[in-house]
Amino acid sequence: MASLVSSQAVALHNSRDSCWIIVHNKVYDVTQFLDEHPGGSKIILKYAGGDATEAYEPIHPPDAITTNLPVEKHIGAIDPNTIVKAIKKVTEADKRRQALLDSRPPIDEILNLHDFEAVAKTILPDKAWAYYSSASDDEITLRENRAAFQRVWFRPRVLRDVTTVDWSTTILGQKSSLPVYISATALGKLGHPDGEINLTRAAAKHGVIQMIPTLASCSFDEIVDAAQPGQPLFVQLYVNRDREITRKYVQHAEKRGVKGLFITVDAPQLGRREKDMRMKFVDDSGTAKVQEGQQDVKKDQGVARAISSFIDPSLSWKDIPWFRSITSMPIILKGIATPEDAILAYEAGVQGIVLSNHGGRQLDTARSGLENLVEIVAALKQRGPWPNPKFSIFIDGGVRRASDVLKALALGASAVGVGRGFLYAFCSYGQEGVERAIQILRDEFEMNMRLLGARNLNEIEPNMVDASALHSHVGNTPADNLYNSIYQPLRLAELKSKL
Amino acid sequence: MASLVSSQAVALHNSRDSCWIIVHNKVYDVTQFLDEHPGGSKIILKYAGGDATEAYEPIHPPDAITTNLPVEKHIGAIDPNTIVKAIKKVTEADKRRQALLDSRPPIDEILNLHDFEAVAKTILPDKAWAYYSSASDDEITLRENRAAFQRVWFRPRVLRDVTTVDWSTTILGQKSSLPVYISATALGKLGHPDGEINLTRAAAKHGVIQMIPTLASCSFDEIVDAAQPGQPLFVQLYVNRDREITRKYVQHAEKRGVKGLFITVDAPQLGRREKDMRMKFVDDSGTAKVQEGQQDVKKDQGVARAISSFIDPSLSWKDIPWFRSITSMPIILKGIATPEDAILAYEAGVQGIVLSNHGGRQLDTARSGLENLVEIVAALKQRGPWPNPKFSIFIDGGVRRASDVLKALALGASAVGVGRGFLYAFCSYGQEGVERAIQILRDEFEMNMRLLGARNLNEIEPNMVDASALHSHVGNTPADNLYNSIYQPLRLAELKSKL
Amino acid sequence: MASLVSSQAVALHNSRDSCWIIVHNKVYDVTQFLDEHPGGSKIILKYAGGDATEAYEPIHPPDAITTNLPVEKHIGAIDPNTIVKAIKKVTEADKRRQALLDSRPPIDEILNLHDFEAVAKTILPDKAWAYYSSASDDEITLRENRAAFQRVWFRPRVLRDVTTVDWSTTILGQKSSLPVYISATALGKLGHPDGEINLTRAAAKHGVIQMIPTLASCSFDEIVDAAQPGQPLFVQLYVNRDREITRKYVQHAEKRGVKGLFITVDAPQLGRREKDMRMKFVDDSGTAKVQEGQQDVKKDQGVARAISSFIDPSLSWKDIPWFRSITSMPIILKGIATPEDAILAYEAGVQGIVLSNHGGRQLDTARSGLENLVEIVAALKQRGPWPNPKFSIFIDGGVRRASDVLKALALGASAVGVGRGFLYAFCSYGQEGVERAIQILRDEFEMNMRLLGARNLNEIEPNMVDASALHSHVGNTPADNLYNSIYQPLRLAELKSKL
Amino acid sequence: MASLVSSQAVALHNSRDSCWIIVHNKVYDVTQFLDEHPGGSKIILKYAGGDATEAYEPIHPPDAITTNLPVEKHIGAIDPNTIVKAIKKVTEADKRRQALLDSRPPIDEILNLHDFEAVAKTILPDKAWAYYSSASDDEITLRENRAAFQRVWFRPRVLRDVTTVDWSTTILGQKSSLPVYISATALGKLGHPDGEINLTRAAAKHGVIQMIPTLASCSFDEIVDAAQPGQPLFVQLYVNRDREITRKYVQHAEKRGVKGLFITVDAPQLGRREKDMRMKFVDDSGTAKVQEGQQDVKKDQGVARAISSFIDPSLSWKDIPWFRSITSMPIILKGIATPEDAILAYEAGVQGIVLSNHGGRQLDTARSGLENLVEIVAALKQRGPWPNPKFSIFIDGGVRRASDVLKALALGASAVGVGRGFLYAFCSYGQEGVERAIQILRDEFEMNMRLLGARNLNEIEPNMVDASALHSHVGNTPADNLYNSIYQPLRLAELKSKL
Repeated sequence: MASLVSSQAVALHNSRDSCWIIVHNKVYDVTQFLDEHPGGSKIILKYAGGDATEAYEPIHPPDAITTNLPVEKHIGAIDPNTIVKAIKKVTEADKRRQALLDSRPPIDEILNLHDFEAVAKTILPDKAWAYYSSASDDEITLRENRAAFQRVWFRPRVLRDVTTVDWSTTILGQKSSLPVYISATALGKLGHPDGEINLTRAAAKHGVIQMIPTLASCSFDEIVDAAQPGQPLFVQLYVNRDREITRKYVQHAEKRGVKGLFITVDAPQLGRREKDMRMKFVDDSGTAKVQEGQQDVKKDQGVARAISSFIDPSLSWKDIPWFRSITSMPIILKGIATPEDAILAYEAGVQGIVLSNHGGRQLDTARSGLENLVEIVAALKQRGPWPNPKFSIFIDGGVRRASDVLKALALGASAVGVGRGFLYAFCSYGQEGVERAIQILRDEFEMNMRLLGARNLNEIEPNMVDASALHSHVGNTPADNLYNSIYQPLRLAELKSKL
Repeated sequence: MASLVSSQAVALHNSRDSCWIIVHNKVYDVTQFLDEHPGGSKIILKYAGGDATEAYEPIHPPDAITTNLPVEKHIGAIDPNTIVKAIKKVTEADKRRQALLDSRPPIDEILNLHDFEAVAKTILPDKAWAYYSSASDDEITLRENRAAFQRVWFRPRVLRDVTTVDWSTTILGQKSSLPVYISATALGKLGHPDGEINLTRAAAKHGVIQMIPTLASCSFDEIVDAAQPGQPLFVQLYVNRDREITRKYVQHAEKRGVKGLFITVDAPQLGRREKDMRMKFVDDSGTAKVQEGQQDVKKDQGVARAISSFIDPSLSWKDIPWFRSITSMPIILKGIATPEDAILAYEAGVQGIVLSNHGGRQLDTARSGLENLVEIVAALKQRGPWPNPKFSIFIDGGVRRASDVLKALALGASAVGVGRGFLYAFCSYGQEGVERAIQILRDEFEMNMRLLGARNLNEIEPNMVDASALHSHVGNTPADNLYNSIYQPLRLAELKSKL
Repeated sequence: MASLVSSQAVALHNSRDSCWIIVHNKVYDVTQFLDEHPGGSKIILKYAGGDATEAYEPIHPPDAITTNLPVEKHIGAIDPNTIVKAIKKVTEADKRRQALLDSRPPIDEILNLHDFEAVAKTILPDKAWAYYSSASDDEITLRENRAAFQRVWFRPRVLRDVTTVDWSTTILGQKSSLPVYISATALGKLGHPDGEINLTRAAAKHGVIQMIPTLASCSFDEIVDAAQPGQPLFVQLYVNRDREITRKYVQHAEKRGVKGLFITVDAPQLGRREKDMRMKFVDDSGTAKVQEGQQDVKKDQGVARAISSFIDPSLSWKDIPWFRSITSMPIILKGIATPEDAILAYEAGVQGIVLSNHGGRQLDTARSGLENLVEIVAALKQRGPWPNPKFSIFIDGGVRRASDVLKALALGASAVGVGRGFLYAFCSYGQEGVERAIQILRDEFEMNMRLLGARNLNEIEPNMVDASALHSHVGNTPADNLYNSIYQPLRLAELKSKL
Repeated sequence: MASLVSSQAVALHNSRDSCWIIVHNKVYDVTQFLDEHPGGSKIILKYAGGDATEAYEPIHPPDAITTNLPVEKHIGAIDPNTIVKAIKKVTEADKRRQALLDSRPPIDEILNLHDFEAVAKTILPDKAWAYYSSASDDEITLRENRAAFQRVWFRPRVLRDVTTVDWSTTILGQKSSLPVYISATALGKLGHPDGEINLTRAAAKHGVIQMIPTLASCSFDEIVDAAQPGQPLFVQLYVNRDREITRKYVQHAEKRGVKGLFITVDAPQLGRREKDMRMKFVDDSGTAKVQEGQQDVKKDQGVARAISSFIDPSLSWKDIPWFRSITSMPIILKGIATPEDAILAYEAGVQGIVLSNHGGRQLDTARSGLENLVEIVAALKQRGPWPNPKFSIFIDGGVRRASDVLKALALGASAVGVGRGFLYAFCSYGQEGVERAIQILRDEFEMNMRLLGARNLNEIEPNMVDASALHSHVGNTPADNLYNSIYQPLRLAELKSKL
């Protein structure tokens, strides 16, 4: 792919019959690929014969096109002399976006992690907000993740000297200034031009560990390159149908110094996220027809399913030894939900599990990680030594406060993953947002540990929480909004004429 | 009834003293029948001496009039030469109706079964919506049917090879592409001109089994005629006070190849459905008087009770052997609610039961089928072999998602009936709506089974659900809307003048 | 008091120093009584020297003035020749009232007991609505009375021949067409000019038993006179500090044929009903001063406390033998709330108890009669024979549906009292309203008993209900409205300027 | 500091380089102190070279400046001849404030303690309302304090002679006309110019005991001076890092006759109260910058944390003997939340504990005092004699009704503290408001005790309440408002165009 191609030459291939596009100044022939594109052919054809970089970038890792397109379709580099720099016009949308950015509250008015979400909801493009915030089906698990924390109550101890309190810990042998790690979330550039790098830089500055997502907008190497020397990083893994790709990815990560491999096991298929799916129709509503005979199946699947077709649904316990054979990084299974599977993981010799329901984005009405934690810790205690330094339990989902984290630790977790919390922080204020989020958590840890009477994380004990209501799904159960929004309440007899 | 009658001759019989009407081009003398008409005489008299077909059709099976009227009152066929074709004027109502139809979202924007209900609620005539959506008394059981599913939580298993998943099954020995059958709902033409035939055709195309309702708008034979050769059908039965009519109906159904007889046992009298009853007054409000001394009892009973006067309240366990004697179809008792009655059914030698509360339309504050399922399965396990291939348990009521169905299967059901879900689908988009509904369920089964870690329905196991909150009626209990809408909350002391 | 007094002579006594008023054409000197009047002196002085009948009538029994005023203050009868008949002007208020009456829905649109309440709320004067609808403190018990019924669920039986169903019963040996009696409520004329007589006449017509209230607007004898020969009546008793008055009242009742004496035991003092109390200020708001040094204690007590000062707070178990000695009517203690007191009542030899919290008008956050029923029946079963024909248990409070009544019967009640339900019926439509209410209950009894599979009240059995959630006060607990209406929810960080 | 300084001389020191201010006619050089001021330097600089008294007064005890500033910085007294009396202009804000005061309802329309809060919310300056009403984090504990009372239900006894009822008691050996004491709340002058003195005077008049707060706006001596001879007072103590200051304070209090020392043990650091913190930004919003690099940490801490920096986080059980050594007042530990700590307190030989969560202002999702009471009474019963006249248990938090108090007494409390209830009373109506509050409680005690069947507080027994739902945190759990206000409910498919 050393040859130079003029932009005029590219422009000739602007149809379904012959479709070339430019991405990052490289020219690709995607004619054959049009029907395989998980996002549908229409979006590609929009850029046929032209530069697709701006649309491509936020929702693909940089190497997606080179990975998926046979090398013979890589036509060459664009001849820089032939590029006509379009003068970027300031559109109404741009102005509105800028006005939204200008309207953000000063960052020191952000007092808690909810605030970032409120800002992000306002300033994000609808599609990005839909992709990030959506969860599967009725989003009951999404909300239950949050509600579960509020069913655990504190039993604080008093009159202990809490002049100095320390909430630092180690996670999989790595130092962390917080009992919290940054969990993987996909497609960071949808929300901020620097994408996941925002997290990397803030994590470096404050001694926090970031987990790199497989579906990052930034490439794996971009993220690692942005890290400081010695900065610990974890990596999240969606296992590819082509295990060779996975092997290379894992071994590359280890070579680059990554300290933990989090294999996602709760996503043989990505969930139906209806907010995300509805967003498709907002874009295309002009073209859809009522009762059309033939449905375009791909059209209604949303961003999430479009980008995930490579994930292997055949992944099973039989694959674990293979992972053991290709890496010496600690292996953590992310997405365990039952004591049965926790025991299997323990017996498979991995180094830990994440009790996660994928932020409510997979099986709806699955229980929260926090609730599963109690059952799983009880089962593991019966099975072997406890606590077990060789087998860590993490949870994620719904965390917004340091108090949430402390509840999880009291119930047996080693550390807690926060995904959307940090994502919304950088969507709102970039790297500085993430730093502010860390600072808020730090303030909250200090206050909560003092008020709990715990000077360090070892002093966070089971009897500091009352979790007796955690398994009660009757009261704080999230509402069934779709059903409720249709149900028409009974009315009383009406007056003949209103006075 | 071979003679021809002129429309002018019919027109002479336009009073209470002599009342003829035309239905489907046949002339009937209904003078004697006026006071027996369950819907009251007024509605008939409106068409005295003229053609009543349009009003008759949606709320009567085609043979209702011939069945109820002695043969000597069948005057003859209308002379086609005498019919003055009324030029159908496009009314304001017609225009509004068309505008509503045009406003429907494109069908591929329908993402779940709730969406059909939202469309139906918008486009249906008020009376049809009231009839379909209403339930008895405070509609607490109606909503509890839905709420109960949300009190059961999943315990998903991971790392199982779920490349292929299969949710097909057999129901009463018949193949079904889904563990779901189309349950009987009445008066389909109120919502769509093709009525129940929409279901028959979609069922044929997708391998789903339809249960034909006794109170269908289409006649039994019309529906069976619309089926494909070999397409399995069930039939629902309201038992007539005149057992001979029932015998003929059942034996006719068997002769036509129906594969299962579902006898409704929870409706010795139809429930008071106040939304439906209030609709009467909207029609007639001009004529009603405050404090009139004599009340017209028939006036306030709504569609439901008007069409059901033939149902026999004396039906009892003693009748079961007789049913056994007149048919060799499998017999299923629809409407069982207690272990006591489930055991009686089992001992009576029928082939199964439906745990149903009639979609909340009968006894209000009766419990949901899902809750009863747990108690009844426990009782049957104590009573005999379990699972028992000769005795099936079905449930219906409140189902909107494949996940609901899987919860019921995990708790011991063989298959699940969906009534309103499919009804609203054809009200909204006809046959194509039903097909879309089936496709949505299929997508949901695929996703949910993969995420549960079950490759086929046999792998749906009791420990995949946490039903510990199912019997808790305290939190998610549906609201008492009538009471709440009257109750006037306490107020605080008020300012003398608002600023 | 035989002398005639001219209205001109009365008119001279129009001040605090000498205050005469005319009531029902009799002249009274109330000068000494002004400061003792439970409703305050101001309201009397408004009519000083004139006719107070219209204001007096709805909130006093006819004999209140003769009972409370020493005989020497009964000046005489008004000389009819001196009365200047005021021409009653039709005021704006009258017109508005008439417009409200005209706007009532036709009575056959009333489908349930809630509907009467909705009509009454609209057409009643504010003061009457406040008096009738109010309850004590936060009105939590008021609403709990209703909510408790919704925590009991039905377990209906099927396939029983329910062609004929019978819901008649006997109450304290008297035939009743319903397992429901009309419970006592005070001051009926506030809501309808015929007051409690509306109930008497409807009860006669439909075979229902009325309990006459001590604080009726109609006199005891007016009510008994309105009854049909042989019509059974009960009487409710507030015990007077002056036992002689009580003795006469009881013995008079027995002489007039009353069949049961219901002694109110839960009202040594009437509750603080803040809706009623606030109504005072609406009337007088012009005159009240902020931070006035001296408070008029009587002013803020509302109608309820104004009319009840005669009630004896010393009433105790020691008084029961005395009641036994003065009457042979069955004695029922109304207002029992604990097994402890139920056993004491049983041992005191009375004929029954009413599990009541006075319609939520006395001790707030007291439990519902329905909940207490379960505990009390269990205690009585341990204590003696059960069911015991010599000791009846009734409940009241929150009943709106026949299904509520059937739940209470299943749990052990003999019959159920309905107060506000019938009260609002006659406020809305007079006697005909009460008849309509009875008819609705009859329809509901027929339907519910058929659907429950019970042919008569003996077939209503404990296992027809699931009361396992009845004692759970966590979910359906009525809201704390005052607190909630003040609490200001947290807000998120705000945009600098809304776009 | 005897010298006189002219106001012209002061005016020269109007910058960060040299900053003098006048407070209560004394001149202070605060140049060195600017950066140490817990409220930040900006607010002081606003008054540099001028009189800061009006801003200083409501949020500092009178002696704060003399205590914190070295004596050499006390420049002298202002020369009265040089003061230019500013003519106080009536501003728009003043007019609005006066209009609000004028709009208050007449005090006899105040029927319950909620009413005071409604008035206070309306008339208080935003900053004062934020400071008083705020609680920590999501304010869940704040609301749980109230909700917990509504989960306890009464079991009233009847037919006891309740002609006279008596709710007086003794608290730590002091007579009290109510089983209620006035609990300490800070900064009373924010809400009323007379501050805490309002409470002192009303307490004197009605025989109620006031607890003097460490952070009162009035000085300790001002309050004690306002008391009547022999009027019992308690004092609340925040322990200072400098124990000598604490020793002097405690011994001074004892010398002035204070009868009980309540040491706050749940506040090693004050909670993050976000309503209070947000209020900062409302003031300064013009000056804050988005994404400013350097954050002013002090800026976002609100009033609460600004005034509390002296509190010692090292306070521990080891300090208790020292307190025993410096005073013979009864010592009560305020803020105990677990049986473990209650036993430690008992063993430490103090005279009692207050089960408190600081009005929800410290650790959020800590349980209510009422719930802890049940667990702690059970533990103490096992540990020693019970009831124990030498060891009292008090609770506070969420009390609004006498019925709340009676529930706490039934469960084992000796008396109950009311803080905000009385605070809002004097904010609304000064001393008279407090008197009205006491009168309301008295009315409620009379009614509730009569209706409970208790003639004095000894007759308030455990079986008069049903607390079985108290530990159920599932139903009445306060809502998670921040989360809920962001969560965007799912929507249904939308019509193409609304009709």
